[in-house]
Amino acid sequence: MSDAYLLDSLPQQLGSDMPARDLWIGFDLGGTKMLAALCDERMEVIARKRKSTKGHEGAEAGIERVKNTIEKVVEEAGVSLDRVAGIGIGCPGPLDLNEGVVLQTPNLGWKNVPICELLEKEFGIPTVLVNDVDAGVYGEYRLGAAQKAQCVVGLFPGTGIGGGCVYNGQILRGPKLSCFEVGHMRVVPEGDFCGCGRRGCLETIASRLAISSEVAKAAYRGQAPNLLELAGTDLSNIRSGVLAEAIEKGDKMVEKIVRNAAKHLGVAAGGLINLLCPDVILLGGGLVEALPKLYSEEVRKAAEDFSMPAYHDSFKVVVATLGDDAAAKGAAVWAQATIESRG
Amino acid sequence: MSDAYLLDSLPQQLGSDMPARDLWIGFDLGGTKMLAALCDERMEVIARKRKSTKGHEGAEAGIERVKNTIEKVVEEAGVSLDRVAGIGIGCPGPLDLNEGVVLQTPNLGWKNVPICELLEKEFGIPTVLVNDVDAGVYGEYRLGAAQKAQCVVGLFPGTGIGGGCVYNGQILRGPKLSCFEVGHMRVVPEGDFCGCGRRGCLETIASRLAISSEVAKAAYRGQAPNLLELAGTDLSNIRSGVLAEAIEKGDKMVEKIVRNAAKHLGVAAGGLINLLCPDVILLGGGLVEALPKLYSEEVRKAAEDFSMPAYHDSFKVVVATLGDDAAAKGAAVWAQATIESRG
Repeated sequence: MSDAYLLDSLPQQLGSDMPARDLWIGFDLGGTKMLAALCDERMEVIARKRKSTKGHEGAEAGIERVKNTIEKVVEEAGVSLDRVAGIGIGCPGPLDLNEGVVLQTPNLGWKNVPICELLEKEFGIPTVLVNDVDAGVYGEYRLGAAQKAQCVVGLFPGTGIGGGCVYNGQILRGPKLSCFEVGHMRVVPEGDFCGCGRRGCLETIASRLAISSEVAKAAYRGQAPNLLELAGTDLSNIRSGVLAEAIEKGDKMVEKIVRNAAKHLGVAAGGLINLLCPDVILLGGGLVEALPKLYSEEVRKAAEDFSMPAYHDSFKVVVATLGDDAAAKGAAVWAQATIESRG
Repeated sequence: MSDAYLLDSLPQQLGSDMPARDLWIGFDLGGTKMLAALCDERMEVIARKRKSTKGHEGAEAGIERVKNTIEKVVEEAGVSLDRVAGIGIGCPGPLDLNEGVVLQTPNLGWKNVPICELLEKEFGIPTVLVNDVDAGVYGEYRLGAAQKAQCVVGLFPGTGIGGGCVYNGQILRGPKLSCFEVGHMRVVPEGDFCGCGRRGCLETIASRLAISSEVAKAAYRGQAPNLLELAGTDLSNIRSGVLAEAIEKGDKMVEKIVRNAAKHLGVAAGGLINLLCPDVILLGGGLVEALPKLYSEEVRKAAEDFSMPAYHDSFKVVVATLGDDAAAKGAAVWAQATIESRG
């Protein structure tokens, strides 16, 4: 009896040199900053460590910074690395998801970096690579605003527009690469040129960059006096918070431009509803956090206007709740699901 | 030894009143005709029975025709209904897939018909309802041109444009309804009005009906002399075979119009590649059967032009091979997969 009890309470702790592996690290590897979050079994964050990415220093130095951030986060929590059961790395693409290789990330300047192999060699801990937006959507599905949904379509307008879809508990992905490139859905065929080389992509009208460039024009013309005072006409200074503040202070033209961007996000959502019939449209990212009501309203309306009536009762529009932790927590819980499903 | 052998060869035949249930019926319930296909375990068709649907006679008479067609197909094969393990009904939507109810089918004129319950009551055989295009795509995935694909995106231009997606062996669907309404993807925002009430849907430029109406104009203007001679200017007479024949006889304007329609199908395919990264784009339906080379060429080219370069190596364009049997065989094999997975 007592033996059985012991085995039950310490399932993996078979000796003093083998502590229970009950913690998970989620790692958000972004273009400008990296964040490691150490999570317990319930995915509560017990320690965080941030560093700037310094992509210009190259991949080798970058991987050293990643390793160091991982070491620091467990150190800060005062636990041993031996307690970490798995590491999930959320990173912008393109990625080889099967081999765990960062193929290329324009923001990082890395090319063909076998990040999972390098970290597994260093720490001896199973490591899983996942697209950062997919991780964020999966995180909201498991821990945040989209729990228990059959199908979540996530739309994250930022500098570009990130998208991800969790269907029946799995991240929709290609055989090797991640997919769900909603930013390049064609919503305004005669619109501006996109970074991808084509015209009319959703990003050209609904990203923060697209909004910034249009409001900067308005400010230059004298139609956005508050914005002009807050940020001038340099796109780099026109962040989400500035847009929200200018709207609040009465810049009608800024509001009009942001609403039009949000509407087009809803047009894309409508198209995705016709294809996938999601029960949850999940909105997130800086713009949505700064203007949650405006975004929810416009996206819901346009999503209804641009989808089949048969689907109107089946979806709701929700705003992400995990904030800056979304990608890191999502990567941690995705690593847990992936590694535990391997047996 | 001999007992074990007997059990092996007759796994479900436990007495003379309980024959092995080793056959499956796939039923293609269309607006104008219905087709029952009796299939063996390997999904080879051992008997077929066709009837006209006569939707105008109402649902009750229609269900009687369905029952009768099922009885006739087993009669024709000379087998007992007791050998049928399951029935799959492929039907245009909207359908309640969970409850097995035909909610509404404009083509049939039926409303809220619990077809699965009615047939199960009549025959005592498990019955599964599935969207007819989904059934066709699933059939090609299991038995035809798209076998072993991780993700098949099926595009079937006809009077409208049907679409379906099989991802990791499952038909993508909503919580209750089928989805993947590719015909209403917005590809030409300033284009013609669609039957759905919006403008610019793929159907308005790439369906057989859209093509017919444009070539009829050309014929009227004297720019399609062969087509004019073959079919006149009545849209009802301008079928896929006529289009192919007019092109073969040298109607350059007809070819131009059909190529433009096929190109837009490829534009939609490109958008779907960015979203789902399918390994197979499956083309089917009357137009594609009549002009397989033209369609494959145009769709491949436009799909590349309108998708991200990272995905160009991961997909191929194939033409469906099951022909008129696709929906019936697909419904049969889907019923088999569904019923057997229930244990």
